[in-house]
Amino acid sequence: MPPEVLLEMAQPIIHHRTPQFSATLDQARERMKPLFGTRQEVILIASSGTGAMEASVINLLSPGDHAVFVNGGKFGERWGKMLTAFGMVAHEVKVEWGRAVRPEQIEDALKAHPESKAVFVQASETSTCAIHPVAQIGEVARRRDVLLVVDGITSVGVFEQKMDEWGVDAFVTGSQKALMLPPGLGMVALSDRGLEAAKKNRTPKFYLDLMKELKAQRDEHTTAFTPAVSLIFGLNKSLELLLNETLPRVFARHQVMAEATREAGIALGLKLIAPDSPAPGVTGLIAPEGIDTGKIVKYMRDTLGVAVQGGQDQMKGRLVRIGHMGNLTPFDMLIAVSALEAGLRFAGYEFASGAGVTAVQARIARSI
Amino acid sequence: MPPEVLLEMAQPIIHHRTPQFSATLDQARERMKPLFGTRQEVILIASSGTGAMEASVINLLSPGDHAVFVNGGKFGERWGKMLTAFGMVAHEVKVEWGRAVRPEQIEDALKAHPESKAVFVQASETSTCAIHPVAQIGEVARRRDVLLVVDGITSVGVFEQKMDEWGVDAFVTGSQKALMLPPGLGMVALSDRGLEAAKKNRTPKFYLDLMKELKAQRDEHTTAFTPAVSLIFGLNKSLELLLNETLPRVFARHQVMAEATREAGIALGLKLIAPDSPAPGVTGLIAPEGIDTGKIVKYMRDTLGVAVQGGQDQMKGRLVRIGHMGNLTPFDMLIAVSALEAGLRFAGYEFASGAGVTAVQARIARSI
Repeated sequence: MPPEVLLEMAQPIIHHRTPQFSATLDQARERMKPLFGTRQEVILIASSGTGAMEASVINLLSPGDHAVFVNGGKFGERWGKMLTAFGMVAHEVKVEWGRAVRPEQIEDALKAHPESKAVFVQASETSTCAIHPVAQIGEVARRRDVLLVVDGITSVGVFEQKMDEWGVDAFVTGSQKALMLPPGLGMVALSDRGLEAAKKNRTPKFYLDLMKELKAQRDEHTTAFTPAVSLIFGLNKSLELLLNETLPRVFARHQVMAEATREAGIALGLKLIAPDSPAPGVTGLIAPEGIDTGKIVKYMRDTLGVAVQGGQDQMKGRLVRIGHMGNLTPFDMLIAVSALEAGLRFAGYEFASGAGVTAVQARIARSI
Repeated sequence: MPPEVLLEMAQPIIHHRTPQFSATLDQARERMKPLFGTRQEVILIASSGTGAMEASVINLLSPGDHAVFVNGGKFGERWGKMLTAFGMVAHEVKVEWGRAVRPEQIEDALKAHPESKAVFVQASETSTCAIHPVAQIGEVARRRDVLLVVDGITSVGVFEQKMDEWGVDAFVTGSQKALMLPPGLGMVALSDRGLEAAKKNRTPKFYLDLMKELKAQRDEHTTAFTPAVSLIFGLNKSLELLLNETLPRVFARHQVMAEATREAGIALGLKLIAPDSPAPGVTGLIAPEGIDTGKIVKYMRDTLGVAVQGGQDQMKGRLVRIGHMGNLTPFDMLIAVSALEAGLRFAGYEFASGAGVTAVQARIARSI
């Protein structure tokens, strides 16, 4: 997190039923709009991203409603679990880990289940480091007149999001990735169609009632329940930093970090898990047979102090995921890749030492 | 908030799937137990107190279940709204604002609605600055074999809580009051009976599924979903400070602050809203007819920089609520009461200047 944000959150806390808090809440909500690519109201919730995902499910669909969801990884799978938990009928579009869903798959699923009212997908599936083509899925959803719900947890603030243009009806994100904040704050925006669906919705809800929150935040400049005050102050500061940098530069910076990391992985003889639709926020590198990435991740984190993630579920022990979202520059990828090289060496993998770092440097050179 | 806590939360954030985070999570959860007065596991949730209240409702009761709730103020009323929202049948025990519920009222309600499975009450009703007799309500609940759910949001860390001894089956609190943290972290503990009920529960839930969280936090030393990392680090530090002070001293400090504030209010000719069962964490003073407390609160906050609250709902414009929870000492009540005197004068109320501050000083003198 940027020191400016840490300091902002370390300010003495003010009460949330004050004009002073209202001014910050209004400003933070307004500043979120360009990151979502929307003119709709952005609603803040005191919850992690999963709470915001749940809010989109229980405010747009009612028990018994059918929905199609894209399961291309751990977070896609979560849509299905959530829908089922709340009594909806969830139709899965299964996608191989690391692949993007093809819009035709969505179309086919909607044809097979014409009673479906919504499609749920990730803009960026963090567990597989792949992105899904939301713009094209939006076209399918419009054509078949169903709602489109998108998890933007690792896409908002990383690459350009066009909620309104893509026809997204509920767009969800969380504070802890590219927004450079601790976890604990969720954000949701609804399209006009999304708002209509939410107004008619009859799923039991209280804490995550988006219509109640929208009324409080838009009309009364406060929140329905006690807000995560320090995180909202931090968010407002984070957004100020991002907007001052300008979003095109923020997105270009992420793009260079992603390409540098991918090119380094390839130079080291590793495979990309998502070669065709890699996420700009996180890169997944598959280690060769016999190399345990759990060991590499632990060594990088505990011995070298460089935090990366391993694989989840079926990719456990096989994947190294290098996050490059938020308060990082392409030069930081020199550190990440250098530590990766050390980790690979530690795990017994043989390669041309320095090949990864050289690739990062080459990519940076092309960007300046 | 104490500077130690602010600094703790301003540390660089660490990933939540690490042994380092697990150690802090375990310690914070363990340190919460004496504040709850329990040997049960304390479950942390990334939500405000309302989210934790909702968790207790949807994990213990199923749609169609009957329950009795005490409505003695805004937060008691919230139990009723929540129960109804999730399809439970809520039987209200109405209590005049500022009064404590009498245990016989609970007994009568349970006799009138013998199908009831639980009683919901506040240990301290923040909106009316009154406490309810949880120990005695616990006896009634045991005798009639119903669950007891208690909102401890302004009681935990303020005065002694004996969850196990009182027979509380779900005990709920939040981070932003006596725990000296920003809002955004909820805590719930369940008794063995509460756990049994939760295991059999069939209310649809996902984000606030306490059994899933308990399994993750107790067995895997992590959380089911992304936790509010910075708040958990802050909590661990806050609890360290409170336990170092020792809980008896923490409670005595709150008691002196409460008595000093009440005695000051009386010396100024104001009335206590809750004379018979005043809350140790917040004192409510009723202004004489014709004096608008909204004006006083605004003046104290915006001109004098002393944050107090007005009345809510039916007490709007009639009440000044002075919070004395958390990182405050009895000497701080000199400031609060001095500012109150200035506010009363500003609002046109006539009184013996200095009478309030003198009363605070007298009460402090008796405590040292």
